[in-house]
This record gives sequence, structure tokens and C-alpha cells, in this order.
Amino acid sequence: MEKPLILITNDDGITAPGIRALIEIVKSIGDVDVYVVAPDSPQSAMGHAITINSTLHIEEIKGGAVQEWSCSGTPVDSVKIAVDRILPRKPDLCVSGINHGSNSSINVIYSGTMSAAVEAGIEGIPAIGFSLSDFSYHADFKAGEKFIKKIIMETLENGLPDGVVLNVNIPKLPEEELKGIRICRQARAKWDESFEERVDPRGRNYYWLTGNFVNMDKGKDTDEWALANGYISVVPVQFDMTAHQFMPNLNTWDLNGFDDK
Amino acid sequence: MEKPLILITNDDGITAPGIRALIEIVKSIGDVDVYVVAPDSPQSAMGHAITINSTLHIEEIKGGAVQEWSCSGTPVDSVKIAVDRILPRKPDLCVSGINHGSNSSINVIYSGTMSAAVEAGIEGIPAIGFSLSDFSYHADFKAGEKFIKKIIMETLENGLPDGVVLNVNIPKLPEEELKGIRICRQARAKWDESFEERVDPRGRNYYWLTGNFVNMDKGKDTDEWALANGYISVVPVQFDMTAHQFMPNLNTWDLNGFDDK
Repeated sequence: MEKPLILITNDDGITAPGIRALIEIVKSIGDVDVYVVAPDSPQSAMGHAITINSTLHIEEIKGGAVQEWSCSGTPVDSVKIAVDRILPRKPDLCVSGINHGSNSSINVIYSGTMSAAVEAGIEGIPAIGFSLSDFSYHADFKAGEKFIKKIIMETLENGLPDGVVLNVNIPKLPEEELKGIRICRQARAKWDESFEERVDPRGRNYYWLTGNFVNMDKGKDTDEWALANGYISVVPVQFDMTAHQFMPNLNTWDLNGFDDK
Repeated sequence: MEKPLILITNDDGITAPGIRALIEIVKSIGDVDVYVVAPDSPQSAMGHAITINSTLHIEEIKGGAVQEWSCSGTPVDSVKIAVDRILPRKPDLCVSGINHGSNSSINVIYSGTMSAAVEAGIEGIPAIGFSLSDFSYHADFKAGEKFIKKIIMETLENGLPDGVVLNVNIPKLPEEELKGIRICRQARAKWDESFEERVDPRGRNYYWLTGNFVNMDKGKDTDEWALANGYISVVPVQFDMTAHQFMPNLNTWDLNGFDDK
């Protein structure tokens, strides 16, 4: 049997400590082929952005830990070009991260890390995004290593159904305080934004986005609950965004069949 | 009773013909307060990107059709700053578009138009994204006018549940050939990408993203079916991305409770 082919990407850029830690974890699995294709610069909060109005460059990084390419585009661009131009075949798994900062609850939608995983999923590749609730450059990516490896092994073994990827978040805790893994749903939370106004040297106003995270959802089956209680959260994520449960109601509106010819 | 306050945005930029057409349709409703806050330049395929590592500018456009501001950021930035800094209160509705090009099926995930609508939804504002399956600058945005107005009126009247927005797509057809409205689910489709390789004047390779749209889903309840058959598609879209139906299976993996302390 062929060795599993694993694509590693992220949104913090190919030199970030988080992706370096993930490369080491994947290598430790043993008998796998590893390719890294990741943005050449930080791409946080890029969501599912793709590059359509300008060009992309890729560059092979010689002497890397594994076979590595940097990409001038977004995380989603990196996955697309990896599959089309770099990898010898469709990979068996795509892992994205380890992100410097949480991608739990609503953050899944802003996250470049998760968008890379979702893009892989769209292309039919089992995929997992990993994030650590610690924005610092010197975050401790070792603490969650055992759990990350376990989640990767289970995913390789079980596979994932068409249209589903995994969103894994790790709380910022020392290894001995990580309590285990919980399968969760995405909490209903949001950012309560405010823009800080400043004045530039030429007298023009400008704004910085700031904000507070607000969790309206106290369910013990949510990722936010798991993280707050010392657990690693695993949320299955789909990219069919249809609100199926609202269909019956929407069909009572005077729309379906409106002005039919 | 206060007049409904309606926020209009888009991803093609504030000067695009599509948003101009949408402004006219909203004005034609009559007794409404209309604010436009939209990117100052085209932002297609930006997905749910937000600006966190640089600053934003907004500029009031004097003498516009209604109260208008341009924003230097993405579509999602425009909604965020509108709510925090520009609008007198939380709007009763946010409409995004009319996009130059389709945002049906998987395109919902790449679309700046839909990301703006989703962002409004996250903030608890009923929201609709409108897109026309015609990329040309001189697309006929008048053809679907009656249907767009109807969908806006029904949404103002019925409201939308927390966590749901609408994705409306209009086929490229003359008015008399538009057959009516269909409530649909998102088709399972994808882009089969390939990158075209070229060589720059300095001998370096670069790539352009190209691709073919592949619809794997022939269901007559899908948006792709509706559009191909002359109907306007209305898909309710949610931003809880949890794959709830996969939970029972995922719980059979050796993960939940792994290495619990």
C-alpha cells in the first residue's frame, strides 16, 4: 500500500512556529509522505479569499524539514495550487495550522486556517484545522501534541464523509492540565466590534478594528464550553451552508412560485 | 412607527452598476431610510476576509443618490464599520449586491457579496445577498427588479430567524423569460481548478487561477437546477457550520474522552 500523502498548510505563513510544530507532529507518525505548501506571509483573517485578479508565485524551499513550497497567495490559494501544480497525487489528508489563536465558534468563518481546510474538503480531501488559543509567537505548541497526533491518526483510519472537515481547538494550558478531547458543536457567539478612531499626521481620520468576544451560548455541548473547561474541542464542519431547518417556514412565505410563468 | 432602516453594500465596489440598480430598487419601496456603505474598490472573491493588521478609511460621498459612504476595506469590514460608526441605529435589513456574477452553490463560500450578508446576520440583522449570473459591466440588472423587490418586501414583513440569511441568484435572462422564484438548497458543486503557468519578463514562472465549474448534484431542489431552468433561486444560508448529522458517527471514533483526566 502507498504511504499516506499529507499536505500541511496554514495562514500564519510558512515560517510560523505553529506550522513548524505541526510538521514535526506529522513526521512523528512515521511512514508518511509530507508536503508543505503555505503562504509566504501571514494571512490571518483572510477567510475564504482567493486570488483571481492577480498572479501567484510559488517557490520551492530547498533544505526544508520536508518538501516545502511557499505561495504568494492566501491559504485557499495555497491548497488549490498544491493540488493542481505541486503534489504528485491527490493527498490523503490536509492539515492546516497550528494556528496562533483560537478558531472556535464564529471564528471558523473568518479563519484562514479553517478556510484552507474547507477548501481541501471541497476538493474531496479529508481535512483538519488545528488552532491553539494563544496568539503569542512563543506559544507552547508542544502541550497538545499527543492529542493532535491522535486526531490525525483517527482521521486517517476512519476517513471523513464528503462535505465534512474537522475544526480542532486547543486551550492554552500546560500539557498536564489538558483534560481530554470533546466532540462539540459550534457555539453561537460573535464579536462585538468597535472601531477605534485616530487621526493621521495629515489630519485624516482612520480606524482600527477592535472588539470583544461575546458568547451567547452556554451549552455544554459547545466548543466554547469545552475550551473553557480544559478540553480540546473537535467540531465537524460542513460547507453546505443551507439552513435546511428553516426551509418549511420559508416555504410559507409568498415567494415559492411567485409570478410563475 | 419608525421607517425601516436599510443598509446596502456589495463587493464590486460602490460605483458598480449592480449596487446602483439595487439602490434604485430599495428606494422604490417608498418609505425607507437608505444608507450605502460599500468598498471603494472591487473586492470579489474576498470571502469573509476582514482587515485586522492595517487601518480603514471611510469617506462620505456628498450628493449621492442616498446617504453613501465608501470604505477602504473588504465587504465584511464595510458592514462592521457601518454598524459601529455610520448608521444611526441597528438596521432592519441589510441587502448586498447586486453582484456581477453568480453566487450559487459553493460560490457562497468565496463570495464577498454573501460574506457581507452573513456578517450582517452574525450581528443579528436580517440580510439578503443578490447576484446576477452575468459578469459583464453592462449586465441587465433591470430584468429581475420585480422579484428582488418582492423578496425584500417579504423579508421585511416576515423577518428572518437568528442565524439565517438569504442567498438570491438571478439567471441571465430577459425579464419575460424569468419564470418565477424557487426556494432551494445549495447544490453540491465545486470548481475544478487549474493554474495556467506563464513566464514573466525576468524568466520567473507565475500562475493564473482558471477553472471549470462542476455540478455533481442534479437535484431539482437545488439552486443550480432553478437557475438552469429560468427560475430565481432563494437559498436560506446559516453560519452555524456544524455538521450536526455527522455527530453520531464522529462519536464512535476513539476521540471523545480520549485520555481524559
